[in-house]
Amino acid sequence: MRVSELSRVSGVPVATIKYYLREGLLPRGETTSPNQARYDETHVRRLQLIRALVEVGSMPVAVIKEVLDAIDDPDVGLHEVLGAAVYPVSGGRMDCDAEVPEIDGAAELDALIAERGWHVHPGAPARATAAEVLVRMRELGLDPEGTLVRAWADAAERAAAGDLAAVERAGGRERAAEVALLGTVIGDTMLGALRRLAQESRSAELYGS
Amino acid sequence: MRVSELSRVSGVPVATIKYYLREGLLPRGETTSPNQARYDETHVRRLQLIRALVEVGSMPVAVIKEVLDAIDDPDVGLHEVLGAAVYPVSGGRMDCDAEVPEIDGAAELDALIAERGWHVHPGAPARATAAEVLVRMRELGLDPEGTLVRAWADAAERAAAGDLAAVERAGGRERAAEVALLGTVIGDTMLGALRRLAQESRSAELYGS
Repeated sequence: MRVSELSRVSGVPVATIKYYLREGLLPRGETTSPNQARYDETHVRRLQLIRALVEVGSMPVAVIKEVLDAIDDPDVGLHEVLGAAVYPVSGGRMDCDAEVPEIDGAAELDALIAERGWHVHPGAPARATAAEVLVRMRELGLDPEGTLVRAWADAAERAAAGDLAAVERAGGRERAAEVALLGTVIGDTMLGALRRLAQESRSAELYGS
Repeated sequence: MRVSELSRVSGVPVATIKYYLREGLLPRGETTSPNQARYDETHVRRLQLIRALVEVGSMPVAVIKEVLDAIDDPDVGLHEVLGAAVYPVSGGRMDCDAEVPEIDGAAELDALIAERGWHVHPGAPARATAAEVLVRMRELGLDPEGTLVRAWADAAERAAAGDLAAVERAGGRERAAEVALLGTVIGDTMLGALRRLAQESRSAELYGS
């Protein structure tokens, strides 16, 4: 298909497609004449992924380029591709060689991570977030015995198992990265909402009249 | 204790305490002279709750007044007290008589709610949020078979059971409302972070080198 049809099918304006081509986010089409190129389904899918990264993940173009480079490099494992897609929406970047900053209150979190048998990079942005929240919880006198945090860790494990099962069903590195990103971002809101509904139901059982 | 000591113990400035007294958020102390009153531990605890509602729940004073009135009215059940504390941080208000607006795409969510056996008020703010997210997921082609949403519902149920167990351990309506509010708001961030850690660990198991 020509660029005009690619635009129509994908819903992305021609000017934006040309910008993505210049920046190397979208591979060039097959040249059919000096002024024309032909695009196919792979371009449509790539545009959908870029839109998801921009609109749902709010990622800058430079970060999107990194994610796409990871997807297109067959030497990069899927684990690293997923990290490249998900780390930026957690306030970090996928960089295993970066120095890991000291995190206040990380000891309690690291004990929890060890207890669950989780294998996570110490530079994972979520490790810093979780450690910070734990410190705040202790300040507020919330859950001094750690029972609530353990229940949340159970819940997180259940959710993550579902997330990775959805990634496995996705088929293909590109769609896998898309599902990981969309599922992570949208899942935050959905989990929060479903948790409130489940809370209300449990509260009605316990205290309802 | 006098107001100056109440301020020191609670960390709330005297001017703010006087404002809360005027607005009826904090009960008056026992009058000991025309210009002095004596305060006790119940005032300290009430101030802690107000601070949590303001700082963590970002609630306006009028809404805090509603929460506190519900706590202080022995005819209001604990289920309604928890709703009064948690509904505002979910974008709603506890008002069982309010008309429930039509929600786009609520059918799929209501089927899920029925499948889980959850008992929730149709006006629950989380019901509108969850329905909206489901519509967006379908638009994005995410989880067409509903497997992922079911995994999230399992996770939400597990988290909610932990939340309500923490409320039960709290002891007292005031502290129960505080734990429900703090746990709900802080729990959103913590669940998101723990989920990312569990995802990374599961991804490493499946795809790591």
